[in-house]
Amino acid sequence: MITYNLALIGFGGVNRALAELIRDEPGRFSSLGFELRVVAITDLAFGSLVQREGIDLAAVLAMPRGHSFNDLPGGSADPRNEEVIKNSPADIVVEATFTSPIDGEPAVSHVKWALEAGKHVVTTNKGPVALQGLELGKLASSNGVVFEYEGAVMSGTPVIRLAHKVFAGLELTAVQGILNGTSNYVLGRMEAGLGLDQAIAEAQALGYAEADPTADIGGSDVRLKVAILANELLGTEIHPDDVETTGIQDITGDDVNEAMANGFRWKLIGEARREADGRVIAVVQPVALPAAHPLAGISGATNAVSFTTDLLGTVTVSGPGAGRVETAYALVSDIIAVHEFAKGAVRA
Amino acid sequence: MITYNLALIGFGGVNRALAELIRDEPGRFSSLGFELRVVAITDLAFGSLVQREGIDLAAVLAMPRGHSFNDLPGGSADPRNEEVIKNSPADIVVEATFTSPIDGEPAVSHVKWALEAGKHVVTTNKGPVALQGLELGKLASSNGVVFEYEGAVMSGTPVIRLAHKVFAGLELTAVQGILNGTSNYVLGRMEAGLGLDQAIAEAQALGYAEADPTADIGGSDVRLKVAILANELLGTEIHPDDVETTGIQDITGDDVNEAMANGFRWKLIGEARREADGRVIAVVQPVALPAAHPLAGISGATNAVSFTTDLLGTVTVSGPGAGRVETAYALVSDIIAVHEFAKGAVRA
Repeated sequence: MITYNLALIGFGGVNRALAELIRDEPGRFSSLGFELRVVAITDLAFGSLVQREGIDLAAVLAMPRGHSFNDLPGGSADPRNEEVIKNSPADIVVEATFTSPIDGEPAVSHVKWALEAGKHVVTTNKGPVALQGLELGKLASSNGVVFEYEGAVMSGTPVIRLAHKVFAGLELTAVQGILNGTSNYVLGRMEAGLGLDQAIAEAQALGYAEADPTADIGGSDVRLKVAILANELLGTEIHPDDVETTGIQDITGDDVNEAMANGFRWKLIGEARREADGRVIAVVQPVALPAAHPLAGISGATNAVSFTTDLLGTVTVSGPGAGRVETAYALVSDIIAVHEFAKGAVRA
Repeated sequence: MITYNLALIGFGGVNRALAELIRDEPGRFSSLGFELRVVAITDLAFGSLVQREGIDLAAVLAMPRGHSFNDLPGGSADPRNEEVIKNSPADIVVEATFTSPIDGEPAVSHVKWALEAGKHVVTTNKGPVALQGLELGKLASSNGVVFEYEGAVMSGTPVIRLAHKVFAGLELTAVQGILNGTSNYVLGRMEAGLGLDQAIAEAQALGYAEADPTADIGGSDVRLKVAILANELLGTEIHPDDVETTGIQDITGDDVNEAMANGFRWKLIGEARREADGRVIAVVQPVALPAAHPLAGISGATNAVSFTTDLLGTVTVSGPGAGRVETAYALVSDIIAVHEFAKGAVRA
């Protein structure tokens, strides 16, 4: 049995859900050959905590938000991210801070510090992957560690790992997806008769949409994810700025009704495809899909990706695209990938 | 580069599609570290052919049906399955004969002969898997080889391999699927106004349904697949006879219309689920699904499976459930699994 020491960078919903899983089911991964121990946590609200023998997760999870780690052994009121990432006894750094769509910071720096220190990185943060994924992957490789980020697209629903692990031997020519649950929920509610603004307000009330829903409605959230899928699955090297992006803000009730009357449904589609000349085109835009299209039936806040392949035609996976436990599972699946890498490295 | 020698048992649509792929793209799998050579073919119509240095696939694929292998070196008008399976220089036996839902023969014997001779087996034939999958798996294991059968459910669309490879660390509590394209096509056409018999006739004209559509319409095809999924993914040991089965033969146009008027769609659902007491229940029956159900939007001859998991909720994969090239890809994915096993065995 191997024990992996984790440093949790950011102690919001997702990393808390991971900590709860470890607290509640410490033996959950023993059949896979490993167990998890949290040795460091940093967070803007709590500060930082490093305990080499393992942090008492029940105790820190019970701490009210705003309480500082300052009064605990190994604790500080200051997040000290750089010091903790570089010097804590973690094998795996779990990056789950917030996404900056502009420069990916501070997450890009967190990931770099960890990889340069020879620590594996798993993250649900799409910023560093979309903006510097290729460089960070190379940095991981040159340091003999792995950089895994299944949760950057569709939370724990397998997309990147599915393509790599079960589509071996296929040529993938396109990926097309519903990659933002808020906008899909909003379009569904417009089909039920709500106006765009009403539907957005409802999504906010339900907790799907942010206070500022611009990234969801305007397509920039999907743009980051399309860039990740294009680079990861179609082997190109594009920047999110290269993805022509149109959101759903100009879709009207009349548009929705007219489509429905003809058996079509408006969806916000992110797509990357390889053209005949080898170039990869990536675009985000609202598309009216015919009912038989595999993405037409994806309802509510569910996400989905259709993969176009040479031998198998179109295969679609759908599932949750958000949720704290669902996203924490993405981290679990990344940690399992670290474990497989580590086993292979030992055996080789 | 490793070369795997294949024996193709049955030279109908699926194994011909595999042979065409090897003929047309001999280097397709070199990036994965192997290449494929067909050293034996047996078929009721052609007889048998064994050529240790590799069969000229272009030549045999050009032979008209009814022509015998008799006049070729190493050829015979007689299929000689047992002799070829036991004695040919194949590393991997590719079983793609017809499915007997009663005793799985002759495929069960083919698989046993191969495994006992220390040859890996890949198959698209659901009979032996549904009826004797556990025994055959043990036989493979005790002979140091693998028995792979992704194509037994949903042709090449990953289901078994998806669950094993990308759901690691999740607890799977249920699988629920649309596992027969003919019946799903028929139900869709009934929604468009056709009667059951008309819709079946149309499916036959399009080549979806067999001359005798009983297995598709009556649910016994799905029953075999549900037994496979229950045993493989929920760790039980059931026989297809244990799966309570109702087909769509009694669904009327009125049933379909009434459901549609209320936003529901009739689907033939195969399901296996673990009850609170640990027992696994498996059933095949028509179910009227609400529009938001992940299987409600699966149209035409497409197949789909929804997996219910503890951390990730419901994840659904949809894709082709038939087709000669699509099913041949299932064999390719199985051969890749053989290769991974062989690499691991060499390294260990």
